[in-house]
Amino acid sequence: MHDIKSFKQYYAVIFTSERTEGDNGYEEMAKEIDQLVSKQPGFLGAESVRDENGFGITVSYWESLECIKKWKENVRHKAAQDKGKKEWYKRFTIRICKVESERVFRT
Amino acid sequence: MHDIKSFKQYYAVIFTSERTEGDNGYEEMAKEIDQLVSKQPGFLGAESVRDENGFGITVSYWESLECIKKWKENVRHKAAQDKGKKEWYKRFTIRICKVESERVFRT
Repeated sequence: MHDIKSFKQYYAVIFTSERTEGDNGYEEMAKEIDQLVSKQPGFLGAESVRDENGFGITVSYWESLECIKKWKENVRHKAAQDKGKKEWYKRFTIRICKVESERVFRT
Repeated sequence: MHDIKSFKQYYAVIFTSERTEGDNGYEEMAKEIDQLVSKQPGFLGAESVRDENGFGITVSYWESLECIKKWKENVRHKAAQDKGKKEWYKRFTIRICKVESERVFRT
């Protein structure tokens, strides 16, 4: 997920979260959601890391706020959001951001 | 790093990176930089995760673009940036973003 500044303007959704113990169907749903989001209009990509303590940061990149809204309302994504609140996460924060500048370094 | 929406407006710096092998003085400098940044005017907090493959995401939160600029120009931070390019990172991307909305969930 680099060099997307060819898009004059794009957005980032920062999802920080702390998982509960155990899988509880998370991995299976995560696979489905990853596949679904990749086909979603305006989705530019995502990067995700979780550490051994269950703390994770996922950033997804989008062409517009409208595209982010549509993904939020996707039926399967809504089901995942419900399970997320009930079973998978102790807490999470979602921040929707407008990317103002991008700088890439590569060796 | 939650509930900072009491700030009418704030910014996020998304730093995604891939480390090189070995420590090469990284941990020591990281400690110093963490201490320095916490005293930096306009710094609201940061969250950081790195996985076992060396891929990491750090997000720091700031009151203004001006505060982000001043931190970028901090002398010790500049030294760290140089070492980062020469020794610690295979690649990194820095995105400066304006946070448009924040939503928090807690069990």
